[in-house]
Amino acid sequence: MAGAGTGSQGRTGTDGVGFSRRRLLGSAGAAGAAGLVLGAAGGAAGYAASRPDEPTALTAIGATEAMFHGKHQPGITTPLQARGHLIAFDLAPGAGRKEAAALMRRWSAVARELMAGRPAGGTDGPGHDTGIALDAGPSSLTVTFGFGRTFFDRTGLTGRRPAGLDPLPPFSSDQLDARRSNGDLWVQIGADDALVAFHALRAIQKEAVGAAGVRWQMNGFNRTPGATGRPMTARNLMGQIDGTGNPQQTDDDFDTRIFVPSAADAQGASGAPGAPDASQDWLAGGSYAVVRRIRMLLDDWEKLPVDRQEQVIGRRKSDGAPLSGGSETTPMDLDKAGPDGRLVIPDNAHARISSPEKNGGAAMLRRPFSYHDGISADGTPDAGLLFICWQADPFRGFVPVQRKLDRGDALSPFLRHEASGLFAVPGGAAKGEYVGQRLLES
Amino acid sequence: MAGAGTGSQGRTGTDGVGFSRRRLLGSAGAAGAAGLVLGAAGGAAGYAASRPDEPTALTAIGATEAMFHGKHQPGITTPLQARGHLIAFDLAPGAGRKEAAALMRRWSAVARELMAGRPAGGTDGPGHDTGIALDAGPSSLTVTFGFGRTFFDRTGLTGRRPAGLDPLPPFSSDQLDARRSNGDLWVQIGADDALVAFHALRAIQKEAVGAAGVRWQMNGFNRTPGATGRPMTARNLMGQIDGTGNPQQTDDDFDTRIFVPSAADAQGASGAPGAPDASQDWLAGGSYAVVRRIRMLLDDWEKLPVDRQEQVIGRRKSDGAPLSGGSETTPMDLDKAGPDGRLVIPDNAHARISSPEKNGGAAMLRRPFSYHDGISADGTPDAGLLFICWQADPFRGFVPVQRKLDRGDALSPFLRHEASGLFAVPGGAAKGEYVGQRLLES
Repeated sequence: MAGAGTGSQGRTGTDGVGFSRRRLLGSAGAAGAAGLVLGAAGGAAGYAASRPDEPTALTAIGATEAMFHGKHQPGITTPLQARGHLIAFDLAPGAGRKEAAALMRRWSAVARELMAGRPAGGTDGPGHDTGIALDAGPSSLTVTFGFGRTFFDRTGLTGRRPAGLDPLPPFSSDQLDARRSNGDLWVQIGADDALVAFHALRAIQKEAVGAAGVRWQMNGFNRTPGATGRPMTARNLMGQIDGTGNPQQTDDDFDTRIFVPSAADAQGASGAPGAPDASQDWLAGGSYAVVRRIRMLLDDWEKLPVDRQEQVIGRRKSDGAPLSGGSETTPMDLDKAGPDGRLVIPDNAHARISSPEKNGGAAMLRRPFSYHDGISADGTPDAGLLFICWQADPFRGFVPVQRKLDRGDALSPFLRHEASGLFAVPGGAAKGEYVGQRLLES
Repeated sequence: MAGAGTGSQGRTGTDGVGFSRRRLLGSAGAAGAAGLVLGAAGGAAGYAASRPDEPTALTAIGATEAMFHGKHQPGITTPLQARGHLIAFDLAPGAGRKEAAALMRRWSAVARELMAGRPAGGTDGPGHDTGIALDAGPSSLTVTFGFGRTFFDRTGLTGRRPAGLDPLPPFSSDQLDARRSNGDLWVQIGADDALVAFHALRAIQKEAVGAAGVRWQMNGFNRTPGATGRPMTARNLMGQIDGTGNPQQTDDDFDTRIFVPSAADAQGASGAPGAPDASQDWLAGGSYAVVRRIRMLLDDWEKLPVDRQEQVIGRRKSDGAPLSGGSETTPMDLDKAGPDGRLVIPDNAHARISSPEKNGGAAMLRRPFSYHDGISADGTPDAGLLFICWQADPFRGFVPVQRKLDRGDALSPFLRHEASGLFAVPGGAAKGEYVGQRLLES
């Protein structure tokens, strides 16, 4: 049933072209001119005035398609998406390597179909597609798969578990809920449309039935593309620009910092932990994801005046520029002192402590979603960051930075790490291959 | 502090023009041509390749502004928004009419500022704006206020409580959680950007401190504009097109069905329940919102073959056309029988039972959000519909239809009403006025 994609009921574009045969209007027609004003009363643009048979426009938001096959899995360097789901599974009792391989094969087929904007499992019959994404374009959907530490024991592959999956050390700000941490398998779903993302989540869950059970599941979001004239350096729910220091794909060392090299590529590298041998080439082009549910104590944070918030962060709230001056992309001057002789970017400022300069060049690609799960029992917002960072080696990326933050970050009193996961994310699947095949079938 | 909007730190457009001075690029530049394909590995469009100082486009999604002032409040006929928050408050112990009036004044000022894309409370100093929406356009933000039955007792206005706020009758499918039902005050927030919506939610909560406490809060979503080439008749999480039968603003009787008339307008009307006298003119141009958190039992629903789902609904899943033929907007032929002599649209089909033809012309404007709060304790998805319907009189809109559905709707086994609210939504505020002023100050 997985990824058969044979149905075409009420849906065009099941021919491999994806969205291209659907009704596409130019972006200019999408919602009228920028600056449209909706009257509150009886305006022509009102909701009820849109007749159901009046076409609206599938814009680039809907039409953009991320590629399933490739050297890397999607969802790592893909631009931030408006909606995300994280879901972790544990293999079912009795399921082992064979069942895991079959599941990864089914999941990969589903991911490929859905990312192309096609239904999964046909539109009728058993295992039919739920229809939630009918009519919608791919909407930049990505589905990314990772393996947790326990996956290797469950599949009899303990001997091939990479050193990068050694348990993360404890941190003093951790208040981790084990039931919402780790897991045998991890799936990250992102899309610019919430229904497309939910549709993928349900399809992934359905394929798992009998093979793996849900361990935990979280929902997140980012800006809708086009809602801001600013670039996609996101603001988080504290109102801070978040992601400025991220490595850029144009950096010479981007790939070596973010993606695991193949054994051949790593030849000559100094046997650093994580440098793979040939039996680990399933991980070549892959990465490690560290996932942390970080609650923001917003009621406390929002009480701080903006200038105090800026001292905590070390950057201006308005535009993300370092307190040492310039604009968002100006390098921090960590030695600059004010007229009073004190450091302009305080000693315990978050941006200082987490800067690559202060961490032996440690770098990770942060690609988070914000989350908001309503009001907690104590009346405070259950909101914050689904922090996801990507690196070739978590013990040279996330761990040293977090260890340092743990010792003296001025931001710590406003954060609470509530869940944690570490996953090895295999390289992308070649055509005809499924994700993880080189591990599970060799 | 409310709505002072005096700060301009890092932000243009605090001059009443709203977003117009921000960087606006043509939609065509927004995300390239429709049909953009993102390579998974190192593509030029990759996330990390977007330098933070590279502008992206504020498209119509961000730039669209709904009007706060008007005959009706916004958020009723406004096109469906991608993200929504519902929040109910109870007045604080000791708070009465005076405090309620002050709160409505503050809330209205905040709503007006935020809907224009301006910060609320300035960008610095006590009560400063959180900054979460800095840089973003208004993004079709709407904030809508309603009063629950208990509000009138708390404010000493029991005598002016309209008959439309009489308690809803119980229904057999109700499994209502009182803690997530009703409330003195109700606020509906909608926007096409999740951070803009969250920003408004926090601002509304902050203004309430000391005057009202949060009773319950729910989050919802709809399609992102442009994700589909279909019109904004939404699909819900069952995959069904939902909203086809909605009254249209172009209908002659739209206003009389959805909005409460003024006493003058109602003159000559047959003294129907809900027809106001002059002392109730605070409600003129207003409406009643019935809010139901309707859990969808998706694990059960998705097991049904599509043809069975279509029998339950009475419409085709693919395009929403009635089973009697035609397209989505073709009127249902409720008498049409198949070759076997059986009704093509079954007797207990949801679309038949809820059709205005079968309910004495009862009509309501359904304007829902979907919700998804993760996985329940029993492993099933905690997902469904934040059903919101608008009508001039709930006892001629929602109640008769729901009563009928309650008796024989084939969809009922797949739904569970978990929370319920009924709110009188005052008419829109004139310039210089706040929402509810004509009730609270006369």
